[in-house]
Amino acid sequence: MLSTTPRTTLGREKHRASTDRADLYDVLDSGLICHLGVVTDGHPMVVPTAYGRIGDTLYLHGSTGARSLRAGGEHEVCVTVTHVDGLVLARSVFNHSFNYRSAIVYGTARTVTDEDERLEGLRALTEHLAPGQWDYTRRPSRKELAATAVLALSLAEASVKLRTGPPNDEEEDYALPVWAGVLPIVTTWGEPETDPALQNGIEVPVHIRARR
Amino acid sequence: MLSTTPRTTLGREKHRASTDRADLYDVLDSGLICHLGVVTDGHPMVVPTAYGRIGDTLYLHGSTGARSLRAGGEHEVCVTVTHVDGLVLARSVFNHSFNYRSAIVYGTARTVTDEDERLEGLRALTEHLAPGQWDYTRRPSRKELAATAVLALSLAEASVKLRTGPPNDEEEDYALPVWAGVLPIVTTWGEPETDPALQNGIEVPVHIRARR
Repeated sequence: MLSTTPRTTLGREKHRASTDRADLYDVLDSGLICHLGVVTDGHPMVVPTAYGRIGDTLYLHGSTGARSLRAGGEHEVCVTVTHVDGLVLARSVFNHSFNYRSAIVYGTARTVTDEDERLEGLRALTEHLAPGQWDYTRRPSRKELAATAVLALSLAEASVKLRTGPPNDEEEDYALPVWAGVLPIVTTWGEPETDPALQNGIEVPVHIRARR
Repeated sequence: MLSTTPRTTLGREKHRASTDRADLYDVLDSGLICHLGVVTDGHPMVVPTAYGRIGDTLYLHGSTGARSLRAGGEHEVCVTVTHVDGLVLARSVFNHSFNYRSAIVYGTARTVTDEDERLEGLRALTEHLAPGQWDYTRRPSRKELAATAVLALSLAEASVKLRTGPPNDEEEDYALPVWAGVLPIVTTWGEPETDPALQNGIEVPVHIRARR
């Protein structure tokens, strides 16, 4: 079960909330990027970034010089992952919507300092994107690690919102001579594009083919 | 040209910045949803939401009861639109990346009170999602309009970041026996799914077929 706090309790459209932790994992694990929100000098800032998950901890990374993580230490953040699954075309402008799955995680992200946890976090980030890459590619050097900030965020305070199915129109609008339905949005992997600088003869590895 | 302010000037990876206003329009117009960042009670909050554009103004909307817009009036916001075009699989963990196009808009969003501009904003939002729907479906009623907050945000302070092409590996890593390249991510429209409650005989309209 997901915890309920004032921030994670939906004020509106309560029927779209899920309190099932499995749904949270699902939305997070099937996403590619998140949108990381921070407050800098009192202003909101939202940047797209990669992430990975180990149990109930989300890992993020960034350059140690990046604005959004500049101060080091702890950061109050909001991490949002959204899948847009379809455009819901209703009979009225007002009832147009999206079919979507979204997760919002609130909390204080801590800068990870333990070297083992830093590596585990980076591994989770890499494996989230392409399972198998951590063991297949060159691991981070000491210098690269020094340039990388790793942040950990607990999934203690999170909410999940889902919408599926056809439009919900007003009773009287169902008689209108207007088509209504869903235009699905499908995200797929294309054919791997080999780096032109690749040494001759190296094939696309099985774990990358499997990613598709 | 896009303005340069401390917030819109990239601290890192300057070569990925675009200062071309046409690129900004491109990223915004080809997106479906944005991630809206606000500060509530000192905490960052990031929610996915729809948007539309008229010239150099972005329009957002929400329920007048929504938390992110609750206070009415003016709101300091950050609006981010991201397209993920591919997974960049490098020879080293460190150089993994995404091919992407993203726009970040900073500013103070004003609650639109002029009824004509409110309608124009809602029209832009609707037409952004599915051109032709505004004239095809039932327009908002007085009651629906009263329940809808419309926000306007100037595109005066915005940045665009783009990455395309194969991985950028370290010189010495090109000799590694590791496949490298890009796994493209392709987003497409599926076949329209007609609402089971639809009156018999109404066909998918041409403007929706054209959306695909």
